[in-house]
Amino acid sequence: MKVSKFGGTSVASAEQIKKVASIVQSDPTRKFIVVSAPGKRFDSDKKVTDLLIDLATVALNNMEVETQLQLVLDRYKEIAKGLGLEQPICDVIEEDLRQRVLIDKSDKEFFIDNIKASGEDNNAKLISTYFTSIGLPAQYVSPKTAGLVVNNYPERALALPEAYENLSKLNDINEIVVFPGFFGFTADGLLRTFDRGGSDITGSILAAAVHASLYENFTDVDSVFCANPRVVNDPMEIEEITYREMRELSYAGFSVFHDEALMPVYKAGIPVCIKNTNNPSATGTKIVSIRKGKHRPITGISADSGFSILYVSKYLMNREIGFGRKLLQILEEENISYEHTPSGLDDISVIFRSHQLTTENETRIIKRVKEELHAEDVHFRHEFSMIVLVGEGMNNNTGLAARAATAISRTGANIEMINQGSSEVSLSFGVHRSNENKILQELYKEFFAAVTVG
Amino acid sequence: MKVSKFGGTSVASAEQIKKVASIVQSDPTRKFIVVSAPGKRFDSDKKVTDLLIDLATVALNNMEVETQLQLVLDRYKEIAKGLGLEQPICDVIEEDLRQRVLIDKSDKEFFIDNIKASGEDNNAKLISTYFTSIGLPAQYVSPKTAGLVVNNYPERALALPEAYENLSKLNDINEIVVFPGFFGFTADGLLRTFDRGGSDITGSILAAAVHASLYENFTDVDSVFCANPRVVNDPMEIEEITYREMRELSYAGFSVFHDEALMPVYKAGIPVCIKNTNNPSATGTKIVSIRKGKHRPITGISADSGFSILYVSKYLMNREIGFGRKLLQILEEENISYEHTPSGLDDISVIFRSHQLTTENETRIIKRVKEELHAEDVHFRHEFSMIVLVGEGMNNNTGLAARAATAISRTGANIEMINQGSSEVSLSFGVHRSNENKILQELYKEFFAAVTVG
Repeated sequence: MKVSKFGGTSVASAEQIKKVASIVQSDPTRKFIVVSAPGKRFDSDKKVTDLLIDLATVALNNMEVETQLQLVLDRYKEIAKGLGLEQPICDVIEEDLRQRVLIDKSDKEFFIDNIKASGEDNNAKLISTYFTSIGLPAQYVSPKTAGLVVNNYPERALALPEAYENLSKLNDINEIVVFPGFFGFTADGLLRTFDRGGSDITGSILAAAVHASLYENFTDVDSVFCANPRVVNDPMEIEEITYREMRELSYAGFSVFHDEALMPVYKAGIPVCIKNTNNPSATGTKIVSIRKGKHRPITGISADSGFSILYVSKYLMNREIGFGRKLLQILEEENISYEHTPSGLDDISVIFRSHQLTTENETRIIKRVKEELHAEDVHFRHEFSMIVLVGEGMNNNTGLAARAATAISRTGANIEMINQGSSEVSLSFGVHRSNENKILQELYKEFFAAVTVG
Repeated sequence: MKVSKFGGTSVASAEQIKKVASIVQSDPTRKFIVVSAPGKRFDSDKKVTDLLIDLATVALNNMEVETQLQLVLDRYKEIAKGLGLEQPICDVIEEDLRQRVLIDKSDKEFFIDNIKASGEDNNAKLISTYFTSIGLPAQYVSPKTAGLVVNNYPERALALPEAYENLSKLNDINEIVVFPGFFGFTADGLLRTFDRGGSDITGSILAAAVHASLYENFTDVDSVFCANPRVVNDPMEIEEITYREMRELSYAGFSVFHDEALMPVYKAGIPVCIKNTNNPSATGTKIVSIRKGKHRPITGISADSGFSILYVSKYLMNREIGFGRKLLQILEEENISYEHTPSGLDDISVIFRSHQLTTENETRIIKRVKEELHAEDVHFRHEFSMIVLVGEGMNNNTGLAARAATAISRTGANIEMINQGSSEVSLSFGVHRSNENKILQELYKEFFAAVTVG
């Protein structure tokens, strides 16, 4: 039995929800359906979640909420009308939303979260009503009654172990279960939302809890591409990819899957399939633990900008046991998480995402490293991009790093950093941001477009 | 004014010491002469230092010392005879050595150090006597009377700040100062020796203390080669090299200079020249702070074996702030110093010298990393070599990493690790030990033997 999650664009309109219904209908093992809030119908459209944030904002400012509330309700009403549903479901949604607006506003975060989560919650109610109306017996299940218990960590909640046990009981339901993504409840009954990509997380938790044979993730692309189609012209599709590869790719620029979302299914050993609601017959991309057979050395290439480098040098640094550890400790105390730490004998660089820096902590870090570690040179460099080549077993491919570095040098760009570990699925290059796109294009040419496969 | 240090082979025999005298005579600015103990005269010869260790060993075992003592004295007597010196200097040396053997043996380390240090000490007395005898007024100066004060750290003593002030007064001596290398004295008057390459350290300290214009280091090669001549056929000589380059090279396989020895002159900004006692007219290799002019991108290539890799993987590792720091903390607590830490998202490798590992700490480290960091996979890999390409400004050389990686791939060897930092003078490759020599040869061919210079 499968857990199928449908993203925002897959449930953005009546037309899209009809596609979802036909997908669910076509495979009786699709028993658990996780839904997002209605997404954009066209490029300039506003997602329901954004409309809800507007609503929360005016409510928090004690302004008149009616206009914003109607904008949200209009979306659901339009969908309900398109699906041929009667008024009652719209009344349920309106009643729910009006109740949420009345919640105590002293905890602003909690108030916003509650309004936002209504997007998924009410969509699940609407979709289960529609399924039943077309002879597909379905039941809306609330994360609260189902026991999706999370810790009390606003906007980045994590499911507690008992959530899995509670959710496993959903197997007893005969109807199709329609479950809203994005949120759970603390043991005290407080609503808490997941991190970015939250509906993917819900689907993954549910798949692990009910021991699904497959976790399907429906989106609006046929598959995951081996490189960003906005930079590389018509890139190849990835048919099968391992968790590790997917994670390396999703981390540095691949936005298909939020990396945390894979954790529950990864631990449970459940394969994932990314499919297209608009073209369900396409094979999609399968995420597995172990990939069989021989493949090209590189599965995908990602690129992400927004990196900074902290450079520290001190003569005889390597003779000081603990230097690197102390440096990382300072960064830890400044709450900065880092990516790589390439080092020479007398220098060490720490590469991390620039958004963690402020003028204040930048100055403070330089001061601390100079004073506490007696470093001679300490400075930051900004505007770097990381290009990551990902592939299982790439490490045993003689000459792969040479091919990659040679391809980069053909663009005339300088390689600022290379990081290749001892047994990895990835090879990273730090380059100046201005060179990112041309390098990605050249690497794609080298590893995918060329006739010879290494 | 210059400080000139002469190594073991430069002062191994009367014939060699005559060369030293003529070198000193040829340049009146050579005012401070630092000498080692007499080294090997031929390949199968024994250095005086080794004869002294034998002497100390029999003395510590309360055995008859006469045979070993005579072997040491014979070397000095032969030198004295060859230099046409009278008996008195030999008596001074014999008297000194007999006194050292009588020192209290309860502190074995101290006893051995004292015997060993006599090699340099007595050679300095002998050489100053010889200089004076040929009309080169010279004075033996003891590190004790000169105030070369060190901390109380057996076999790895470090000069204290007051040592520099004390030694600066040697500038008042009109004669040539002949100073023994390798040892100093604690504030309590205890003799303590320096680390490996100890006479180089003495020379460097002295050069910094007397504000020398140049620190000359006389050895038995014309210059430093850009690659190991035992592996690469007839490698190029390096004319000028920066401190940073020298240090990177000397660390990984270049044995010309002990890296710690450069510290005092580096701090004082005094250039160093490595010259050949047997061919003093050769230019030698100059070590400077900043190298002028345009040079080939690579100054030297070193290779060193004996590295191990600790590999640690854990899903979502990069989400845990402090993971890397905690791992390094465990290694620090196990007293292991590391070289590099290449990392992926979910794995990190720590590369360090294998000699620090024992079966016990290897097992303990694996256990601790698994238990304390909840890592999924933790294992050691051994038999690695590090190949290090060194050159100032190599970072701005587009395509250099590509050239190096391509050269390595031509040998058919796999690259296990690449480490290139953000602003470094070095680029390191981790390879299996069995591939070390062929890679060094191929890299030499690429960067030095080829007609094209990048």
